[in-house]
Amino acid sequence: MKKLYMMTPGPTPIPPEVSAQEGLPILHHRTSEFSAIFGEVIKDLKHVFQTQNDVLIMSSSGTGALESSVANLLSPGDTALVASAGVFGDRFIKIQEAYGVKTLVIRAPDGQVVDPEKIREALKKNPDIKTVFTTHTETSTGVVNDIRAIGKVVAPTPAILVVDAVSGLAGQDLQTDAWNIDVVCTGSQKGFMTAPGLAMVSLSPKAIPFVDSAKCPRFYFDYRKMRKTVTENQTPFTPPVTLLVAMAEALRQIRKEGLSNALARHEWLAKATRAGVQALGLKIFAQVPCNVLTSITVPDGVNGKAIVKRMREEYGVSIAGGQGDLVGKIIRIAHMGYMDRFDVVIALAGLEMILADMGSKIELGKGVAAAQRILITKPGAPAPAAKAAPATAGAR
Amino acid sequence: MKKLYMMTPGPTPIPPEVSAQEGLPILHHRTSEFSAIFGEVIKDLKHVFQTQNDVLIMSSSGTGALESSVANLLSPGDTALVASAGVFGDRFIKIQEAYGVKTLVIRAPDGQVVDPEKIREALKKNPDIKTVFTTHTETSTGVVNDIRAIGKVVAPTPAILVVDAVSGLAGQDLQTDAWNIDVVCTGSQKGFMTAPGLAMVSLSPKAIPFVDSAKCPRFYFDYRKMRKTVTENQTPFTPPVTLLVAMAEALRQIRKEGLSNALARHEWLAKATRAGVQALGLKIFAQVPCNVLTSITVPDGVNGKAIVKRMREEYGVSIAGGQGDLVGKIIRIAHMGYMDRFDVVIALAGLEMILADMGSKIELGKGVAAAQRILITKPGAPAPAAKAAPATAGAR
Repeated sequence: MKKLYMMTPGPTPIPPEVSAQEGLPILHHRTSEFSAIFGEVIKDLKHVFQTQNDVLIMSSSGTGALESSVANLLSPGDTALVASAGVFGDRFIKIQEAYGVKTLVIRAPDGQVVDPEKIREALKKNPDIKTVFTTHTETSTGVVNDIRAIGKVVAPTPAILVVDAVSGLAGQDLQTDAWNIDVVCTGSQKGFMTAPGLAMVSLSPKAIPFVDSAKCPRFYFDYRKMRKTVTENQTPFTPPVTLLVAMAEALRQIRKEGLSNALARHEWLAKATRAGVQALGLKIFAQVPCNVLTSITVPDGVNGKAIVKRMREEYGVSIAGGQGDLVGKIIRIAHMGYMDRFDVVIALAGLEMILADMGSKIELGKGVAAAQRILITKPGAPAPAAKAAPATAGAR
Repeated sequence: MKKLYMMTPGPTPIPPEVSAQEGLPILHHRTSEFSAIFGEVIKDLKHVFQTQNDVLIMSSSGTGALESSVANLLSPGDTALVASAGVFGDRFIKIQEAYGVKTLVIRAPDGQVVDPEKIREALKKNPDIKTVFTTHTETSTGVVNDIRAIGKVVAPTPAILVVDAVSGLAGQDLQTDAWNIDVVCTGSQKGFMTAPGLAMVSLSPKAIPFVDSAKCPRFYFDYRKMRKTVTENQTPFTPPVTLLVAMAEALRQIRKEGLSNALARHEWLAKATRAGVQALGLKIFAQVPCNVLTSITVPDGVNGKAIVKRMREEYGVSIAGGQGDLVGKIIRIAHMGYMDRFDVVIALAGLEMILADMGSKIELGKGVAAAQRILITKPGAPAPAAKAAPATAGAR
């Protein structure tokens, strides 16, 4: 018998009430019953997106949503800026290049965030930039970009701001309307606590003319078709009915908890995780750590890939390693979606045991205790003053 | 209390053992456990596709798979032939046009099938045709095209044959390799007895150079990436894990039944449905009816939309109406996937009661009895000689 614990940045654990919905007999999608659920989902999504904008739903992974934003907003030969802080930002560069878009790149070093001032300079120097793309929480390094500041830079220009919020939405604050984010792309399998296979995109009024004039080819991902059918609570093509019905239940749970409470819970779990990691003498890799994932610099002399492998094989705890240049150098523990205080305890307890077993000088229980000092408080409460809970520099 | 019966051409009913898989805790996709299931799925898919070719899996509806074939096989300005027999064939014309492909069209009138000789003439007259697209079972009208004959026409030319088998595969015989079909596109929610959200595409060796040289933009749907990762039993982007694990169970059920038995069962259900319909004095709309759906011409003076609405609202039986020009003129009863003899009995019994109630001269039980005379035999058995079971002209 081995119980499995999923602490990877997507897919993430699914509440049993949500999974149970997937086991029910399937509905036909061209029915009033389905439309009622679809309408409820759109309404609840707008609440989580913090927007009055249109929200569209498609059958794809998050990458499909990202590609759809390029195909629907740009024409071949257009100039577009990508402000990347890691693997997921870099993916957007490749998508734009596949569509023949002239791509300008601002790349923050791994572990650092995008500097909004560099975006301001780029927009000034290149007034033909049509879209500015960036990432909300970049889970490859664990940082959160300052989307509010970037929104302030882009809003007064003719360009529109496109944000990959696949991993952050519902876990890390993102105020679509208040922060002037024109296009937000996300997926079902992270903060939305549902299986992968659904992607969601919001479109501001400023973005609509881009959709109407874009010349990149698109049919399946055509926002024009989706905008028509969404008014009838339908999708242009057969939706993944089961996933949508399940996500309706996940959204009901978010509504019941309250979005601000869910965001505070993620912040609390993140603070506890960071406190535990730091109490063990380990370093947080991200300079501005996000609330949905903690990235940890692997101590000298320890193989990061071995930590991940042994955590999973010996303890049943799935965490993630580094990607690209960071393979073996960092490990990543997700705390997004259906997660409570004991998930943090499990992750830290497992990490302590594995590191101790691998020969690191680790005092068993020390990281857990530091986390407990935060987890004994309520989410949103001021951090305890006790010296054993180190300040979490840069956290927000 | 109202029990619901799903007899629409997708989504279709899901076996409880398959639904149950969806309710299990989610797996992480970058694990050996997931890869083992993925490998099993690919192997079982090849069996159902009747192919040794590569089979790729993507997270999308069937339309996404169709679009992926255009984006991966063609370049803007290429010439491509679409041989359509209905709404789903016509959709492919729109996809090709969205990608700037020069599209030649052969359109069979509604209810009729594509004439392979017309494809031969078109290929002779336009040697620059790169791909020939057609539909296997066209569920908008209920016909099945003669894919074997079309394969014979296309195989000796430089063109490749792309077949939309979204609704037919696993229900109506399609021999990918023996019939020389280069690209077969399908989805999870019909014969594969799984929820919608997964699409599958097979690629022949003749098609591979098309993939390598195509200039249409693609990233999410890029077969080159999928061909690389499939060798490691992985997908380039997060797959819809839950749907894939569920489809693995559905494929196990198909394997257990035996593909030839599953195909014979569909033929048997189709024959029984047609016999019942004809015994009621109604006409089969399709000239060459397929085995996964029966299309019925609505009797004069009866509103086809009302039949569908009342069947669903009063009897809980979901059937489909006509699409496009056929709205109100035909009704469509699906018998694809997880269907046995009593599904046919329910559909016919419900139809009889609704028609009688709407004032048609219907002898209650007459259609059911005609179907029973076939359903009392075993699938694959020769049709009974009794006069009450009319010959099913054109059936295969």
